[in-house]
Amino acid sequence: MEEMKQRILTQGEVLPGHILKVGSFLNQQIDCAFLERMGREVASLFAGCGVTKVLTIESSGIAIAASVGMAMNVPMIFAKKHQTSNVSGRVLSTVIHSYTHGNDYTAVVSAEYLLPGDRVLLVDDFLANGNALEGLIRMVEGAGATVVGAACAIEKGFQHGGDKLRERGYRVESLAIVETMEDDGTVTFRP
Amino acid sequence: MEEMKQRILTQGEVLPGHILKVGSFLNQQIDCAFLERMGREVASLFAGCGVTKVLTIESSGIAIAASVGMAMNVPMIFAKKHQTSNVSGRVLSTVIHSYTHGNDYTAVVSAEYLLPGDRVLLVDDFLANGNALEGLIRMVEGAGATVVGAACAIEKGFQHGGDKLRERGYRVESLAIVETMEDDGTVTFRP
Repeated sequence: MEEMKQRILTQGEVLPGHILKVGSFLNQQIDCAFLERMGREVASLFAGCGVTKVLTIESSGIAIAASVGMAMNVPMIFAKKHQTSNVSGRVLSTVIHSYTHGNDYTAVVSAEYLLPGDRVLLVDDFLANGNALEGLIRMVEGAGATVVGAACAIEKGFQHGGDKLRERGYRVESLAIVETMEDDGTVTFRP
Repeated sequence: MEEMKQRILTQGEVLPGHILKVGSFLNQQIDCAFLERMGREVASLFAGCGVTKVLTIESSGIAIAASVGMAMNVPMIFAKKHQTSNVSGRVLSTVIHSYTHGNDYTAVVSAEYLLPGDRVLLVDDFLANGNALEGLIRMVEGAGATVVGAACAIEKGFQHGGDKLRERGYRVESLAIVETMEDDGTVTFRP
């Protein structure tokens, strides 16, 4: 998506530790008109795939997942990062390692929302080493449902999480794939 | 909003401890067509108020806040519950007590996203004792911006957080106000 690349180049900020800060339009502050276009773009990429549900993990993937759900007119589910009083009954859970925070967390979804017949599109804002998506895949397949594919706003191609998933046969679509990111702020994209 | 009341009556579930579980359509699994209607309803309630930004706290308010932002065509900001590597530079922060989890947490927003000229609409999924909204009000007013009002999907009227805010002069609009909630599952609404 050309607009995503332009936004990254003009409004993104490279911070030490290979962090790409896009807080002004994607993460923390969200440009809602752009959010709507992102949702439509993802919906058009996966049109005709029989998607029945969109799944993400709280919290920064929720806005784009909601936009995709609205564009596809299917329910959106978000996995919670800790079991809370609002997740009751039988749950699906999986442990995910967070690269950003350097710790493990448990992602949880009520089992009643992921059913064997579901065809699930995974959505997230960032795809780096792929740990979050791999966790969501375990949850979906553990429920006997089908992973149709994954859509991310920004993929850090140099961390290869997306490539690992593609090698395993999953369809992964990213609105922009950052191939290199230098400390001087230079960003290049995968063609 | 009549549809919200009907959804609560038909799809909501009363759990011990005055918890209203609406995970099947609002919180955890979100009906995206309904989400779009909620956003439009809130946008129409605050039309003409000069709203420049929508503000919520992660994570269950993000979807409805994004929908409101899309309907109003203004940016949406979400406060994070812990300072992370993605929130850098000068921040606005405030300590909020969570009734659900029985602890305190710090809500954080990059100072660059809330500016003195902003007219901010606060949005959340639930309004109970009002602690979260009061925290957001402190952040907005601490930034020298103006609170236009607050919009919530479901207000627990019997916990009086909304009434306290109204008494202080804030405009608070809830799509449904639950007046009573019994352990046998009976729910009544404020007219």
